Amino acid sequence: MRREITGFSNPTVKLLKSLRDKKHRKREGLFLAEGLRLLTDARACGRLPQMLVMATARDPHPLLDALEADVLASGGEVIVTSADILSKITGKDNPQGVAGVFAEFDTSLDRLDRSSAKIWLVAQALRDPGNLGTMLRTGDAVGAGGLILIDDCADPFSVEAVRASMGAVFTQGLAQAGWDDFLTWLRAGEGQLVAASLREAVPYRGAPYAAPCFVMVGNESRGLPEDYELACDLRVTMPMKGRADSLNAAVAAAVLAYEVLASLEG
Amino acid sequence: MRREITGFSNPTVKLLKSLRDKKHRKREGLFLAEGLRLLTDARACGRLPQMLVMATARDPHPLLDALEADVLASGGEVIVTSADILSKITGKDNPQGVAGVFAEFDTSLDRLDRSSAKIWLVAQALRDPGNLGTMLRTGDAVGAGGLILIDDCADPFSVEAVRASMGAVFTQGLAQAGWDDFLTWLRAGEGQLVAASLREAVPYRGAPYAAPCFVMVGNESRGLPEDYELACDLRVTMPMKGRADSLNAAVAAAVLAYEVLASLEG
Repeated sequence: MRREITGFSNPTVKLLKSLRDKKHRKREGLFLAEGLRLLTDARACGRLPQMLVMATARDPHPLLDALEADVLASGGEVIVTSADILSKITGKDNPQGVAGVFAEFDTSLDRLDRSSAKIWLVAQALRDPGNLGTMLRTGDAVGAGGLILIDDCADPFSVEAVRASMGAVFTQGLAQAGWDDFLTWLRAGEGQLVAASLREAVPYRGAPYAAPCFVMVGNESRGLPEDYELACDLRVTMPMKGRADSLNAAVAAAVLAYEVLASLEG
Repeated sequence: MRREITGFSNPTVKLLKSLRDKKHRKREGLFLAEGLRLLTDARACGRLPQMLVMATARDPHPLLDALEADVLASGGEVIVTSADILSKITGKDNPQGVAGVFAEFDTSLDRLDRSSAKIWLVAQALRDPGNLGTMLRTGDAVGAGGLILIDDCADPFSVEAVRASMGAVFTQGLAQAGWDDFLTWLRAGEGQLVAASLREAVPYRGAPYAAPCFVMVGNESRGLPEDYELACDLRVTMPMKGRADSLNAAVAAAVLAYEVLASLEG
C-alpha cells in the first residue's frame, strides 16, 4: 500500500517518532533505519522494511525504485511525506530522504552459528550506542560473524547505533545475553575468549589466537569485571605509551580484531 | 579567590553554561573540562584551570585539595556551587562533581616539534567531536606527538571532544591549519604522510612506515579528497571483508597508528 501523509499530527508520524525511544521500540518490536545506502544493504541481506518512508522532494533513484517495488510486493507499506516530517521522524537536521521501519530481530544466542566465522565481537555493558554501532561496522570489516552483547548494554536498535553501524546491523549477527548464559553457551562448543587486560596478559601482537576467536571489551568507565577477565582463555595487552591506561572501547575492539584477523589469516 | 554561588541566574553560571557553544568559547577564548581525573592529568601537564568549579556535596579528595591549592596559588578562582548548578553548566545528568575553565591553547602548526615523536595523527574535515576526542586519546596511547586538524574540523575544545579525549587534549599537541599551509609546513622538514586509501595502495601490514609518520584520516562521509590522497607518501589499505568499504574514522586512525607503532618499534 502506498499513501501520502501531510500532517505532523498524523498517528503514523507519531508512531514513527516514538521509535526514537527504547520503550516504544520494545513495545512495538520495531526500529528505524535511515538512508538509501543502509536500506539497500538491508535489502541485499534479505531484510525489507515493513514500512518505507520517503520525502516527496527526493531525487529519483533506481535503487529507491527497486526498494519501493520490493516493499510493496512483500505486502509492506510505502509512505510519502514532506522532508520536514521525515526530519522530525528521524530527529536529524539533514535527513537522507528515506527511512525504513524494520521488525527487531531475534537476538537469542542460539541463533548464532559460531562455525560460520573466525572472529566474533563481544561487548560487556557498553553504554554508548555509537560504540555499539561502530563495533558492528568493524565486525563487518574484519569478517566477524557478529556482535554479542553481554549484560546491560545500550540498545543496538537505537537510531544512533543503527546509524553508526553504517548498515552492519543488517549484515552482522546480533545476540544479547547475561554473562552466565553466554559463558555456558560459549563452553558448550569451540571458542577462545580473548580480552584486553592488564592482568597476567601477553602482548597482543603475536599472541596465540585461535578460531573461533571471541574478542571481548568491557564497559566504557569500568572495563571488564575481574572474574570476567579471569574466565578468558587469553588476556592480551596493548602498548599504552601515554598517561591513559585504556583506549576507547570500540577502538580497542578494532585494534584487537584486526590483529586477530592478521594472525588467523597470516 | 574562593566564592560560593547559589543561584542559577548568576552571571558566572551563565558564562560557564555559554561555553557549551563554540561561538562563546571562541569569543571568551575559554573551554570547559569535567572530572577530577581529567583535571589532575591537566595539572600534571602544567595546565591549571583559570577557574575551578566544585559541587558542595562532593566527597573530599586529596587530589582535589591539591588542585584547589594550586589554582588559588596561581591567582585563579575557585567556585563552590550546588550539584544541580554544576550539572546545568556541563550539560550532563551525572556531573563528576568538579569542572575547570581553561584558556584555549595556541594551535598554530609552528608550535609543534615534529622531532619529538615518531607518530602524529592528522584529521581532515572530521565533523564528529567524539571522533576528534577519541583520536586524541588514541594518540596518547600510541605515544603520538599530537593531532593536526586540517580544514573544517569539529572544535577540539567542545565539551564532547574534551570528554572523549579522556584528558589527552592536555597531553597531546594540537594544531589547526588549512591543507595548503599544512603541506607547506610538512614538506619543510622530515615527515612521511600516510593515508588509508583504495588508490594504488599497499597492504597496511608490513608497509614501509618511516618516522616521523603522519597518519591521516578524512571526513566521516566523504573520506579524503583525491588530491590529498595523491599528495601522500604512502597509501595503505586495510582488509574490508564485508559489505562496507570503510571504517569509522577514529577506528581507522587507531588500527593504522598501532600498526605504525609496531613497525617503527619492532
